[in-house]
Amino acid sequence: MRSGPPLLAALALAAALAIASVAGAEETPSVARFDSGGKMLFPADYREWVYVTSGHGMSYAAVAANRPEPPFDNVFADRAAYRHFLDTGTWPEGTVLVLEIRDGTSHGSILKGGAFQTDNLLGIEVHVKDTARFGGDGWAFFSFDGDKPAGMIGREASCYACHQANTAVDRTFVQFYPTLLPVARAKGTLTPAYLEQEAAAAQ
Amino acid sequence: MRSGPPLLAALALAAALAIASVAGAEETPSVARFDSGGKMLFPADYREWVYVTSGHGMSYAAVAANRPEPPFDNVFADRAAYRHFLDTGTWPEGTVLVLEIRDGTSHGSILKGGAFQTDNLLGIEVHVKDTARFGGDGWAFFSFDGDKPAGMIGREASCYACHQANTAVDRTFVQFYPTLLPVARAKGTLTPAYLEQEAAAAQ
Repeated sequence: MRSGPPLLAALALAAALAIASVAGAEETPSVARFDSGGKMLFPADYREWVYVTSGHGMSYAAVAANRPEPPFDNVFADRAAYRHFLDTGTWPEGTVLVLEIRDGTSHGSILKGGAFQTDNLLGIEVHVKDTARFGGDGWAFFSFDGDKPAGMIGREASCYACHQANTAVDRTFVQFYPTLLPVARAKGTLTPAYLEQEAAAAQ
Repeated sequence: MRSGPPLLAALALAAALAIASVAGAEETPSVARFDSGGKMLFPADYREWVYVTSGHGMSYAAVAANRPEPPFDNVFADRAAYRHFLDTGTWPEGTVLVLEIRDGTSHGSILKGGAFQTDNLLGIEVHVKDTARFGGDGWAFFSFDGDKPAGMIGREASCYACHQANTAVDRTFVQFYPTLLPVARAKGTLTPAYLEQEAAAAQ
């Protein structure tokens, strides 16, 4: 059987190419950059990305908890990934999340209670989703020392297993992200493991 | 005395207009919007502005300090104002700063220590610099209840006197803004009152 006149086939092909081109134009290239050795370049402008949340003295291990002057952690997402999450409740390929850890202090100026952040930066950890580059579940961690390029943290590190076991959406702790948790709930993208954990806590 | 040949005067005027035109093009209109009654419209997209800092349980009054589950406060600046501050150590006309106050909790998911932010928004306060509109030192405060337009907080409110007496740069608590305090120090824009307070604390 013939599939149709050559002119219609040509028009269909042209239409398909036009659609593919439009779809391609809507994809945003990742902000992650790598050197020729595969090290990630420091994302120098992350403080102008979209703010996700901050925690104070957050710890998943009892031994490290409740230091007298605990640090703050601030999370940032690249703008395209954040908007994709608002639309879908999921992180797109190319997502970059930055965790900035910064000294906290309860002493300064006219403060009588509580704590604020200082200019003493303690560390920067980055979480990147790029399945073509990293394989597996697509995610990799990097820990930056200043603005030098950073190698990927090896898969044996505990961060991978902990994120796999405990995160609310696709290896990320969306349960701690106040503007994104309601989106994930509405879009139905919370993991079964997280929903079980939440149900157990409510009992 | 003549001020110069007419042609040179005309060229000088043209050059001055060209410079004024370029300067005008570089000015960014304020993100603040007001209704016909002078109420400020809610800045709905503030979470995508530039993040400035977060505090946890911050209080300037001893009586309110150290609640068992203190709130977090997150500060955002409009992008043009933030970049102007990085360049100059000062806030331009049109600056809008947003203070978001959000519930904190130390109980959730796998957390063993510290606290994180929840989706329970407690309040939004906004600080706007617009000398033509507000007169005086140019700054006015607004407190939003949901996304309804908000009237200016009256000048008798304690926030005005406290900001006038205690802030490190132009009525703003830059002493609590970790990425901006070093800029203000480098640009020499810290107030004499703050520098005295800092010197007294160091003794």
